[in-house]
Amino acid sequence: MTRSLTISIDAMGGDHGPSVVVPGVALAATEAPALRFLLHGDERAISAELAKHPSLKDRVEVRHAERVVAMDEKPAQALRRGKGTSMWSAIESVKSGEAQGSVSAGNTGALMAISLLILRMSVDVERPCLVVGWPGVKGITTVLDVGANVDCDAERLVEFAILGEAFHRAAHGVAKPTVGLLNVGAEDMKGHEEVRQAHSILRSGKFDLDYRGFVEGDELFQNKVDVVVTDGFTGNVALKTAEGAARYIGGELRAALNSSLTSKLGMLFAKAGLMKFREKLSPDAAAPLLGLNGVVVKSHGGASDRDIAAAIRMASKLAQSDFAAEIERNMTRLTAAVAEQQPPAVDGAA
Amino acid sequence: MTRSLTISIDAMGGDHGPSVVVPGVALAATEAPALRFLLHGDERAISAELAKHPSLKDRVEVRHAERVVAMDEKPAQALRRGKGTSMWSAIESVKSGEAQGSVSAGNTGALMAISLLILRMSVDVERPCLVVGWPGVKGITTVLDVGANVDCDAERLVEFAILGEAFHRAAHGVAKPTVGLLNVGAEDMKGHEEVRQAHSILRSGKFDLDYRGFVEGDELFQNKVDVVVTDGFTGNVALKTAEGAARYIGGELRAALNSSLTSKLGMLFAKAGLMKFREKLSPDAAAPLLGLNGVVVKSHGGASDRDIAAAIRMASKLAQSDFAAEIERNMTRLTAAVAEQQPPAVDGAA
Repeated sequence: MTRSLTISIDAMGGDHGPSVVVPGVALAATEAPALRFLLHGDERAISAELAKHPSLKDRVEVRHAERVVAMDEKPAQALRRGKGTSMWSAIESVKSGEAQGSVSAGNTGALMAISLLILRMSVDVERPCLVVGWPGVKGITTVLDVGANVDCDAERLVEFAILGEAFHRAAHGVAKPTVGLLNVGAEDMKGHEEVRQAHSILRSGKFDLDYRGFVEGDELFQNKVDVVVTDGFTGNVALKTAEGAARYIGGELRAALNSSLTSKLGMLFAKAGLMKFREKLSPDAAAPLLGLNGVVVKSHGGASDRDIAAAIRMASKLAQSDFAAEIERNMTRLTAAVAEQQPPAVDGAA
Repeated sequence: MTRSLTISIDAMGGDHGPSVVVPGVALAATEAPALRFLLHGDERAISAELAKHPSLKDRVEVRHAERVVAMDEKPAQALRRGKGTSMWSAIESVKSGEAQGSVSAGNTGALMAISLLILRMSVDVERPCLVVGWPGVKGITTVLDVGANVDCDAERLVEFAILGEAFHRAAHGVAKPTVGLLNVGAEDMKGHEEVRQAHSILRSGKFDLDYRGFVEGDELFQNKVDVVVTDGFTGNVALKTAEGAARYIGGELRAALNSSLTSKLGMLFAKAGLMKFREKLSPDAAAPLLGLNGVVVKSHGGASDRDIAAAIRMASKLAQSDFAAEIERNMTRLTAAVAEQQPPAVDGAA
């Protein structure tokens, strides 16, 4: 597809603002010659950076924004005083249709709250889902929700499946992603009510989804399925536990390797190898907020220019894909499937 | 304390039966000269092993049991046909008072079901809690429940706190263990209803517990508190995710270290160090089933003689401690605390 796309960017987001975001835009621009950009933020600071990248000249438009959402601002505060910030304007450009997707490396809670207010949800889920690309032996598994929605009934979980499946296809180019539900065992009777009911709805075959059943915590690393669905509470605990495990094991390993002279020598030799493995476990460069009427991709606060470029790449993939329409189609099926599961209670003889 | 204790042992449990269990008993006997043992299982097989350990002669009594619970038997099946098995008899000796604690390396589901049927619960929790000793930078954190009770309201979580705190003191000799609740953030308003309500009950100060508030997944490895409480669903996912992370990182590391000749050399040197770190992550040698009227400790199916000895050591620590009385005391306080939180709804003017 070569249709011209515009990505709206919060140029002040992240720890380094325009000095990292603009080089990130330049990188993305080289990869995708048809892409255009709206840069929101302090005009003077942005222009100074743009001067170093003359190739961007005709592809970038700068929109001055007086203010910036602070990295430590509470979401409620960001909502109250967010209007006029670079983040707010970046999202508004998606709402107005000027841009087909947006990217920010700013405050996550504020970005979620502002995106929710401006774009609203396209599904019944209350707040945008947080998604993580989980590294495994065979590649990346999409895991959601990893923290936004902590209370989830069966329908919520099925909606996450619909969102995650469409996202994984758009972002990773897998024609028919496989989907699983995180549980404490593989058998039908395992787990709590919500997860068993979601399993039963997903298994009904009513959706355009390749559902494969339950997945356990250790199987996340085996890429047993492409998309793993869980509530925001369990997902957040699992993600943080994995991060904690990586840090702990790294530390133990360093201590163990330092405990003798031969091991110390080994450490020197092994260093190059260790670097490689840490790269895989680095925080997410490009995390979409799923379920909104519009594409929003966040990068982490410490994002590098390469991370910003990765987030832009993901935003443009999502904007170019059919994922919004696919989600809508499956959501209609969900409504039908749920109606079938719960026939009118008061009415007539069985 | 030198009071004579008897530990009842399922000599047929685990992958290797008496050939590993009896040497394990011999190891434990050397460490604790006052300990006595009841060994349940095939008399001939046990006696053959006992002949190799003459020092055990006056300290062991063998109780013949015709049958064995298979490692792959379903809990329901084990309940139906369990009577007369070595596992069943080992637990019955605790019920009858002949033994003060029991150890089995057999089928976990069957052991839980049989223990529950014979000993019953001492608390309101439905099934015995599964506990794990989580390795961290400063030592071991007790985490529960890791799989037995997947549906937990606030009261259940508080009971886990009571059980885990008393267990940690008895097993690890910490006079006043600190307690935390696993959650997705540190602030009071974080998490779902159940975890917030449990937080409020524990914070009331009505218990003899050093409660420290919420703990996040990555903090499990930092030993931020001695005891971390969670529902069996989240606990099981966290545990399996940590196991999966260890396996994945180990594999990635091997691949990375093998990718170049210098790294390969490094791998050779580092091997001794790597061994050390894996030991810490090995499956639990001694896991108590908490909340029963009696001490039951399980070891894993592949238990070595040292693992069996560790399980015996834990069973005798628990049997010698006041943990049952401590649990009872705090359970009485819980009843009072809950009654205070929910004043009679219909009755009279405020």
